[in-house]
Amino acid sequence: MRTSRLEAFSDGVMAIIITVMVLELKVPQGHHLTDLVHTTGVGLLTYLLSFVYVGIYWNNHHHMFHLVRHASGAVLWANLSLLFCLSLFPFTTAWMDDSKFAQTPVVTYGLNLLSAAIAYYTLQTVIIRQQGPQSPLRQAVGRDLKGKISPAFYLAGILSAWAIDRSGRVGVAIALACFIGAALLWIVPDRRVDRVARRYETSD
Amino acid sequence: MRTSRLEAFSDGVMAIIITVMVLELKVPQGHHLTDLVHTTGVGLLTYLLSFVYVGIYWNNHHHMFHLVRHASGAVLWANLSLLFCLSLFPFTTAWMDDSKFAQTPVVTYGLNLLSAAIAYYTLQTVIIRQQGPQSPLRQAVGRDLKGKISPAFYLAGILSAWAIDRSGRVGVAIALACFIGAALLWIVPDRRVDRVARRYETSD
Amino acid sequence: MRTSRLEAFSDGVMAIIITVMVLELKVPQGHHLTDLVHTTGVGLLTYLLSFVYVGIYWNNHHHMFHLVRHASGAVLWANLSLLFCLSLFPFTTAWMDDSKFAQTPVVTYGLNLLSAAIAYYTLQTVIIRQQGPQSPLRQAVGRDLKGKISPAFYLAGILSAWAIDRSGRVGVAIALACFIGAALLWIVPDRRVDRVARRYETSD
Amino acid sequence: MRTSRLEAFSDGVMAIIITVMVLELKVPQGHHLTDLVHTTGVGLLTYLLSFVYVGIYWNNHHHMFHLVRHASGAVLWANLSLLFCLSLFPFTTAWMDDSKFAQTPVVTYGLNLLSAAIAYYTLQTVIIRQQGPQSPLRQAVGRDLKGKISPAFYLAGILSAWAIDRSGRVGVAIALACFIGAALLWIVPDRRVDRVARRYETSD
Repeated sequence: MRTSRLEAFSDGVMAIIITVMVLELKVPQGHHLTDLVHTTGVGLLTYLLSFVYVGIYWNNHHHMFHLVRHASGAVLWANLSLLFCLSLFPFTTAWMDDSKFAQTPVVTYGLNLLSAAIAYYTLQTVIIRQQGPQSPLRQAVGRDLKGKISPAFYLAGILSAWAIDRSGRVGVAIALACFIGAALLWIVPDRRVDRVARRYETSD
Repeated sequence: MRTSRLEAFSDGVMAIIITVMVLELKVPQGHHLTDLVHTTGVGLLTYLLSFVYVGIYWNNHHHMFHLVRHASGAVLWANLSLLFCLSLFPFTTAWMDDSKFAQTPVVTYGLNLLSAAIAYYTLQTVIIRQQGPQSPLRQAVGRDLKGKISPAFYLAGILSAWAIDRSGRVGVAIALACFIGAALLWIVPDRRVDRVARRYETSD
Repeated sequence: MRTSRLEAFSDGVMAIIITVMVLELKVPQGHHLTDLVHTTGVGLLTYLLSFVYVGIYWNNHHHMFHLVRHASGAVLWANLSLLFCLSLFPFTTAWMDDSKFAQTPVVTYGLNLLSAAIAYYTLQTVIIRQQGPQSPLRQAVGRDLKGKISPAFYLAGILSAWAIDRSGRVGVAIALACFIGAALLWIVPDRRVDRVARRYETSD
Repeated sequence: MRTSRLEAFSDGVMAIIITVMVLELKVPQGHHLTDLVHTTGVGLLTYLLSFVYVGIYWNNHHHMFHLVRHASGAVLWANLSLLFCLSLFPFTTAWMDDSKFAQTPVVTYGLNLLSAAIAYYTLQTVIIRQQGPQSPLRQAVGRDLKGKISPAFYLAGILSAWAIDRSGRVGVAIALACFIGAALLWIVPDRRVDRVARRYETSD
């Protein structure tokens, strides 16, 4: 099966997820700047973080399927698992924001990030296995440093929010720093795939 | 008429249906794990079931239209009927979940599953008739065992939820087991279409 | 400019409109069949009518752009006007349903149908003018009987709902009959475009 | 990387933004024309303004990527920034409308327009730099008069709403005139890109 429809469907789902979150932004009751800051001030930043994360996944998905020509049934389901994890972002983002970054919602958000990372890794592995020993994706991924470091960031964030005394709010602050840090790691463009893709296209 | 726009439109509608359901998940009022379990615990599983069902239909739709090159007006309308049935899933899922699996909502959910199965079967029949005696879809579908067994599952679920004494909750449990069982039946990838598709492409 | 992105964007907007309406369906408070009938009974039929109308427009849009290769700026804006009219359907449908088919909402729904028909006619005219004297769309449209009859249906519906004594509810009933009748007129597939398209493709 | 998926994803996001705004339109409680005018009268016009703005951006985006064959990582992120700014439109539009055009919401709406214009300009600059000295986009854009005038309009609107005494409502009226004026400026089709595109395609 060609991957064009799988890509179109994934694009559609991710486009909806990324825009649905803005619906969670509550319109302030009052008409003044303080109302905006009180109602949506933090919310806007939380929304931005999740927007960036969905953007990163779309970006990586885009790069990954650049090296995939055909998709088996296993790839379809691995891809749907990833989309399921991503589709929970509006929910966990809203809970974290509504609770003003309470401990459990922050841990839940971290678990959502972790589950999406695992689903992405699974999808990557399924594709590499399907492509066989000459897999262009395996060459592009290489040692996959980022893919291995970021789950560690999420895990560190989850543990610090969970373990460190809540009243001090230090654990939650560390967790958010981990989540933002892992995002920054990914925004830097990934030159590996670009390189292999150029070779792959030339040899075509 | 080429099928590319029909596929793009169907992808769009199914992408929206699959993500709209997450909007039905209510964000918990409290900030603790028990709040999450109480508010969304069951909801998440119900959402997952409907997510898997829409995923199955997208998957089968994808496989089916792989063998279709041109679509007549009848195919367009049969396809819209299927999309209509699928678009009711967020509604019936939310009702079943809100009512904590009361008898009537579970029966309604089963009827929704049944109507989608009938719409899919109709679409398949319309395409096969259009393709004529050499229909590649007919060859791919073969005896269509899954397509015939799953409506029986839905019917069994509807009847058990409807007929068995409600206070005991046994009927509803059997119904849910039927709905989950039919989903599992479909997740196993369908090798028939893959096989015929390969032959079809080679003979192209 | 090639029309592929215009079609993709229109597909996206119409896919959203057609599925957004299901969000207007309120989940019943109770768990019984009577709750469903009371809360959503009529709503489901109203939703079905608007679903069919958006389906018709998508269908016609699909057929129309089958005969269009390039789109000027005027076509883009005429197309956006059509999408704007269509995007009001969820709103007017919900109002008509909420008011249990009161006079003004039914008239408003009819005006929405009328405005969409005018926007579609304008789009068609702009394309024919752009294509020049050998316009394949002009040949396909021919005398455009349906396109001329349906606005008359909408107008008749609007006038009867508006003019006939409201307490009797006769006017509203006639209006709804007009709106349903015009929809049925369009569901019958349009063989004209198919015919010209085949010729157009052959001569390509 | 080819730009097809970037365009499809952007189409999806803009299609959702443009239709999500209609969800903000509140269905009137009463059944009379006065209820419609009171509840949605102004809202419909505000919605129309934002609809036109998203339409303009889609239109320009469409024209711009007509001259782009390949997209680097920087282009992907500049594009996501633009989509982020656009996705705030439903929120700022709803706030401006809810507050019946109070000072701060109008200023916020203007800032949203300004940020989208800056994001668009950044995207354009990133693409031109990527394309190098022979950039077809640079030739098409030329002196980019519109792109330079419209931010001035937004800024004038923001300042007048902010600086002029609020009770008089004159400042807000001037601001809205600026926002509508800048939109009208863009609706006039842009012949520059069409011209260069034709040359570009011929030389292909």
